[in-house]
Amino acid sequence: MPTIANLPTTLEALLASYADGIGVNRSAGHDLPNSRVVRTALERLFDVMFPGFSYSGHPVTDSNLPYHIGDQLNHVFLELAKEVERALRYGCEQRQCPVCDADKRAAELVNELIGELPRLREMVKTDVQAGFSGDPASASIDEVVISYPSIRAIVIYRLAHELYVRKVPLIPRMWSEYAHSITGIDINPGATIGSSFFVDHGTGVVIGETCAIGDHVQLYQGVTLGALAPAQGQTIRGEKRHPTIEDHVVIYAGATILGGETVIGHHATIGGNVWLTSSVEPYTKVVLPKADLLFLQPGRKRPLSPEDFRCPAKALCDADGTRVKP
Amino acid sequence: MPTIANLPTTLEALLASYADGIGVNRSAGHDLPNSRVVRTALERLFDVMFPGFSYSGHPVTDSNLPYHIGDQLNHVFLELAKEVERALRYGCEQRQCPVCDADKRAAELVNELIGELPRLREMVKTDVQAGFSGDPASASIDEVVISYPSIRAIVIYRLAHELYVRKVPLIPRMWSEYAHSITGIDINPGATIGSSFFVDHGTGVVIGETCAIGDHVQLYQGVTLGALAPAQGQTIRGEKRHPTIEDHVVIYAGATILGGETVIGHHATIGGNVWLTSSVEPYTKVVLPKADLLFLQPGRKRPLSPEDFRCPAKALCDADGTRVKP
Amino acid sequence: MPTIANLPTTLEALLASYADGIGVNRSAGHDLPNSRVVRTALERLFDVMFPGFSYSGHPVTDSNLPYHIGDQLNHVFLELAKEVERALRYGCEQRQCPVCDADKRAAELVNELIGELPRLREMVKTDVQAGFSGDPASASIDEVVISYPSIRAIVIYRLAHELYVRKVPLIPRMWSEYAHSITGIDINPGATIGSSFFVDHGTGVVIGETCAIGDHVQLYQGVTLGALAPAQGQTIRGEKRHPTIEDHVVIYAGATILGGETVIGHHATIGGNVWLTSSVEPYTKVVLPKADLLFLQPGRKRPLSPEDFRCPAKALCDADGTRVKP
Repeated sequence: MPTIANLPTTLEALLASYADGIGVNRSAGHDLPNSRVVRTALERLFDVMFPGFSYSGHPVTDSNLPYHIGDQLNHVFLELAKEVERALRYGCEQRQCPVCDADKRAAELVNELIGELPRLREMVKTDVQAGFSGDPASASIDEVVISYPSIRAIVIYRLAHELYVRKVPLIPRMWSEYAHSITGIDINPGATIGSSFFVDHGTGVVIGETCAIGDHVQLYQGVTLGALAPAQGQTIRGEKRHPTIEDHVVIYAGATILGGETVIGHHATIGGNVWLTSSVEPYTKVVLPKADLLFLQPGRKRPLSPEDFRCPAKALCDADGTRVKP
Repeated sequence: MPTIANLPTTLEALLASYADGIGVNRSAGHDLPNSRVVRTALERLFDVMFPGFSYSGHPVTDSNLPYHIGDQLNHVFLELAKEVERALRYGCEQRQCPVCDADKRAAELVNELIGELPRLREMVKTDVQAGFSGDPASASIDEVVISYPSIRAIVIYRLAHELYVRKVPLIPRMWSEYAHSITGIDINPGATIGSSFFVDHGTGVVIGETCAIGDHVQLYQGVTLGALAPAQGQTIRGEKRHPTIEDHVVIYAGATILGGETVIGHHATIGGNVWLTSSVEPYTKVVLPKADLLFLQPGRKRPLSPEDFRCPAKALCDADGTRVKP
Repeated sequence: MPTIANLPTTLEALLASYADGIGVNRSAGHDLPNSRVVRTALERLFDVMFPGFSYSGHPVTDSNLPYHIGDQLNHVFLELAKEVERALRYGCEQRQCPVCDADKRAAELVNELIGELPRLREMVKTDVQAGFSGDPASASIDEVVISYPSIRAIVIYRLAHELYVRKVPLIPRMWSEYAHSITGIDINPGATIGSSFFVDHGTGVVIGETCAIGDHVQLYQGVTLGALAPAQGQTIRGEKRHPTIEDHVVIYAGATILGGETVIGHHATIGGNVWLTSSVEPYTKVVLPKADLLFLQPGRKRPLSPEDFRCPAKALCDADGTRVKP
């Protein structure tokens, strides 16, 4: 049977490489939150938001609902308080705090998070309604809850944001990157987002740490709400680097809006692929001018002109049978 | 030991919030399909398409293949009929049907799906072949089957579409959003897609509910086949809102094609980042005109002109050593 | 109880469809690597790179670290050598080798991979540092390790590349498509990538098989480093089809750089959405000219001009209260 040949040498080199402490999660010193437990607690919280819907969920009954939810909350408390304690202890170590009352503070913080759940549930109900209204392909409120990535992303964002504003290290970003992994929607937990938020399709959406988004905002796939490049002077840690989106704004696929001083006024519409680094008035629609596309056909040296078109198929023609300009 | 402080108050508020029934999956009333079981059945169907290849798969032997597949189909039937029954019962409840023969109808529908599997397998074989031919980085047919996201996405789409056309609520979208989550490719189960379909890379692709796609179509990452915005009058639920793509069309990365009356004629090629809201003739190639990029260098107030270029490295020069225009 | 009606007919048709051998992983003939085992080995290797951080990880102690790592390496060897053997045997079958010493060669190759781990760890430490420096939203080195998709993607790429250069079939792409699935970042294992590599956000990034990327390169979401279309003569399997990116280059979101002869000179910056198919000098910044966006408002027939702007909100105005041009 073949054997592992170089174990002692490799092991020695690896142990030397660990000696600087970079990228090692030690139970003495750093004892960072456990990824698996942090995700389990998140799945339980998702189940509290939408009882019976979560990934591993079974439906609940009217009579067992109080027990089920009470049990989930107890589990969340026990599991998450331990991980938040680890995160706080890590934060104390980073900032070299003289005193670190991490276990007591962790319990308080998770109690606060649990106390926010009824309010957060009312918020995510508005998000579900926005998903149903905003997508003509949706068949019911329940289909939105059970399958839409936007709902997974916004619920996880709303929970992560509560820990972010309470300055819990690590866990908010662990949650948001989990959402990013399963939905393709990357919402930094530091962003603020109003009610009735919906992201259609969602893959590739990026919402930066200091974004401020109002109520009834709808985004499509590939929208970036980001920071300007350093040369333009906006990447200082902690400053507002990302845009403000006022109420009732719609931003179509692939649009990019950059900069901490950029404000998209309420009821504005930003067209697909638009690139904006300055503010837009309320009620304004911003679109790219139509590009002068080139239409080429084999055997032609010049681009195709509209006059070259015949009617090749019914679908390509007007009702009266004349050809349609491409 | 720290304790959960606010459980009774929070629980009471949550129970009040559940009272309106929004986002609660109850075993009385709504008893919606179970996400985990629905995914397990899908993985079994994937194993029937490509025996021995599925995520949890082990290879099969010539002698055990009939038993293995027979067993998988039996499991699919038992598991999926129960979930389809739940989905149909939910549909009846939504439409307030006088009679809902959900258990009998569910068994019929899953039998129909199983009956389609040989035809679907022939289709997905053409998709695998298209992936192998369409990607110069592919090393073998088996590599395409075992690793390409396009194959996961199209197999799941083809299965989901069978339940979609049979008007099963919820499950088609649960399957397609699962595929979206693991591949970044978002194909609405309502779309129709011909044989030999391939999506290269795939992340960010969106194919809307009423798309009609022919045979031998190849897409690249970030392509949207979508609907026009409401102001342009095309978002009525149920209408054809998404484009028609005829046979042998190639659509490069980032292109956006919108609208239910937009037809891309057969053998057309749509270039990267092109934005189209009207039809294109067969055999036409549509490209963006080359943008007048600005080339800036430090210490210059004006953009760099081609005359400013020296030959900095062999790779940047023509064979005769003269500089190459950027 | 409803029953499966059409099992014998369907089974017969499926067995006939398997007879051509396409898409069947047989223990006789093809016995391809097991996806689950291949992923487990990868998770173990991730744990060796960053002990205690991996998805299922618990922290390690100073005293158990040598045993933990030694044990992980032994597991990797035992599990992965078996799967590499399957992959090599498959490769022999494809190329109809006269002799296939797959078990001995597999052990050698996995020993070589294990021997590279200390060097790879030093590389990925530079990647972590690049992630921390490159993202103003990052709070600590540990946050980058524990949550950033870029780190998952680059570690998996660096491991997959070692098997790619040793010509192991199937497994490099299985690993890279696993990374693609969980991060949205698609790095072909054939690419070469220098130290201190960082991809911010990452969803939609595509890096082709023959890319050559230098040190200290930073990409943003949606960047494609791809091949030109066949018509332009560059898709021959095995040729250099993808660009060269020299040291210290930054490429912003949505930029597309194509072609095997395209070289982006060191210290260049490529702006968002730029489309490039030719080389760029060192130190050059390439940007799109500002598009002439149209600003429309309800009730107007003409586009909005800057003169139409009032100051609707403090955020939209200069400090002196005058309105700001959109």
